[in-house]
Amino acid sequence: MSELAESIRWNDDGLVPAVVQDAVSKEVLMLAYMNRESLAKTLETGETWFWSRSRGELWNKGATSGHKQKVKSIAYDCDGDALLVQVEQIGPACHTGKYTCFHHEIKPDGNAGREPAADRFRMLGELERI
Amino acid sequence: MSELAESIRWNDDGLVPAVVQDAVSKEVLMLAYMNRESLAKTLETGETWFWSRSRGELWNKGATSGHKQKVKSIAYDCDGDALLVQVEQIGPACHTGKYTCFHHEIKPDGNAGREPAADRFRMLGELERI
Repeated sequence: MSELAESIRWNDDGLVPAVVQDAVSKEVLMLAYMNRESLAKTLETGETWFWSRSRGELWNKGATSGHKQKVKSIAYDCDGDALLVQVEQIGPACHTGKYTCFHHEIKPDGNAGREPAADRFRMLGELERI
Repeated sequence: MSELAESIRWNDDGLVPAVVQDAVSKEVLMLAYMNRESLAKTLETGETWFWSRSRGELWNKGATSGHKQKVKSIAYDCDGDALLVQVEQIGPACHTGKYTCFHHEIKPDGNAGREPAADRFRMLGELERI
């Protein structure tokens, strides 16, 4: 086991969450999970590889869609239980066709009331009733 | 249970990972976990509240250090199992005094060899041997 792999605090399933960020726009694109093998393949190929918890298999992001991510940098955090991967994103990151997976937005401050999307009013109300 | 809380796919521990990003610089600051109560308190107060897995308690980020995070927006992702919280960060986000928790950086491409920090050479080698 390398020193780095030991610096990472893999969870009980052998995974670590990886935040993927556009290296240029700095937009946060998605969050997925890596295991040791997917991190190794990411480093080896310069493309992102994750562990699909639902399918129980490695996946090379964009292998089917062509919407690959070219790795620009990888960092791990102060307590080693999260990764930040900065990438050049080819096409949209989200399987829905949106650029980022984080497209369900809520603004919890007063400005939310001035947003045009009617759904935001409803969602804000929902949030406040949690 | 509100519609929104049901839109979020809380894990078996009732938690969801929350990526915290500086709303202005777009730097990713940290990743922490929220449960229903901490998300509700975050929305209610406009400051970030998380669930500390190690201490088993709610924590208001910056309550001790003063390095609070004022919430500018919250989004959840396409499959509802991650949050993105954009904040105004007061002081450094990391308990080490660094601005971001993601300060252990590796550049897996060839450019890493031209970085001045000697540690990067060693870490890159470690990564390749995983």
